Amino acid sequence: MSTEPDQVETTGHVHGYTSEKSSHLKRLRRIEGQVRGLQRMVEEDKYCIDILTQVSAATKALQSFSLELLDEHLSHCVVEAAQKGGAEAEEKVREASDAIARLVRS
Amino acid sequence: MSTEPDQVETTGHVHGYTSEKSSHLKRLRRIEGQVRGLQRMVEEDKYCIDILTQVSAATKALQSFSLELLDEHLSHCVVEAAQKGGAEAEEKVREASDAIARLVRS
Amino acid sequence: MSTEPDQVETTGHVHGYTSEKSSHLKRLRRIEGQVRGLQRMVEEDKYCIDILTQVSAATKALQSFSLELLDEHLSHCVVEAAQKGGAEAEEKVREASDAIARLVRS
Amino acid sequence: MSTEPDQVETTGHVHGYTSEKSSHLKRLRRIEGQVRGLQRMVEEDKYCIDILTQVSAATKALQSFSLELLDEHLSHCVVEAAQKGGAEAEEKVREASDAIARLVRS
Repeated sequence: MSTEPDQVETTGHVHGYTSEKSSHLKRLRRIEGQVRGLQRMVEEDKYCIDILTQVSAATKALQSFSLELLDEHLSHCVVEAAQKGGAEAEEKVREASDAIARLVRS
Repeated sequence: MSTEPDQVETTGHVHGYTSEKSSHLKRLRRIEGQVRGLQRMVEEDKYCIDILTQVSAATKALQSFSLELLDEHLSHCVVEAAQKGGAEAEEKVREASDAIARLVRS
Repeated sequence: MSTEPDQVETTGHVHGYTSEKSSHLKRLRRIEGQVRGLQRMVEEDKYCIDILTQVSAATKALQSFSLELLDEHLSHCVVEAAQKGGAEAEEKVREASDAIARLVRS
Repeated sequence: MSTEPDQVETTGHVHGYTSEKSSHLKRLRRIEGQVRGLQRMVEEDKYCIDILTQVSAATKALQSFSLELLDEHLSHCVVEAAQKGGAEAEEKVREASDAIARLVRS
């Protein structure tokens, strides 16, 4: 629409990851499949070590997902807040640092 | 069935975690729910930091699951192999150490 | 000195962590002490589990140090680069994301 | 000495890692060197990202050390306790599982 060309710009609620939405959903559906595969392995009494290998794979997949999300967040939200400067920049950096700490410790 | 009382007992292929099967399945179904919740968050354009918090929670849940599985594996398979001694004990320890390394590094 | 008021500003080589230098050095010396304590434990044939507990403590201390350093880096270098915008902002974000990935995976 | 031949052998308090003592000490001294290198980097105002890369290297080295120590502990102490069976086996497995959880979470 000519009067409201881009909903995203008028509301400003677009997040860094929005453009990557379908790739994120694809990744998360694959992880969901891995978790369902784990349930099948437990049901079929698979060997514990093989289950553990699959848990490590799912954990790594979740980690990669979060690193990608964080990269997009830094590239968009944090960079934009930094350009505004002041309290908003500080707040976004603090928030990102807390998220990174949770990732590193999980 | 009276002629084939319990496949598990006759074959001896029961693993450490078998007795905990239903609790494991419950945990994994909860983790699957968390991963589906993540998909919903991405679809609804939720704020990246909130998504990251949920990813950390799912990662921690997978980690706790693997630590429990590993504890059962040590208590059953590794202890039994140790009692037999020799190559089998060595093999089981090496296998467990490799699984631990994968967990620590994931 | 009146002719060279602030070396830092003229060279521009001040990093985010410079103001925290003495606190960082104190932390690192404490970690060095923990690693020397580990050597003493090995020399005195201390119990492996007790050594492992100390290794975990040293690892956590290194992790906290890196999270603090990263927070200062985001607050200073990345925010400044973001304000300049363009290629420099992108480069700094990419570099920070790579460092975060190394931390999460280590 | 004939009157006190070797405390280690008479009491049986030799740990899994004793035979690897000199290799462990060498590793730990290298890690100590890495931590001292970090102090030098902070003193010389090196770039934060380069410091972070070195912190990741030191963290990984500590992790490898702990994985090796744990492997020796499983191979010796846990296997021996398993052969004795009963409460001692259970106690050693529980203790090892707790140490693994600390490693995975650090």
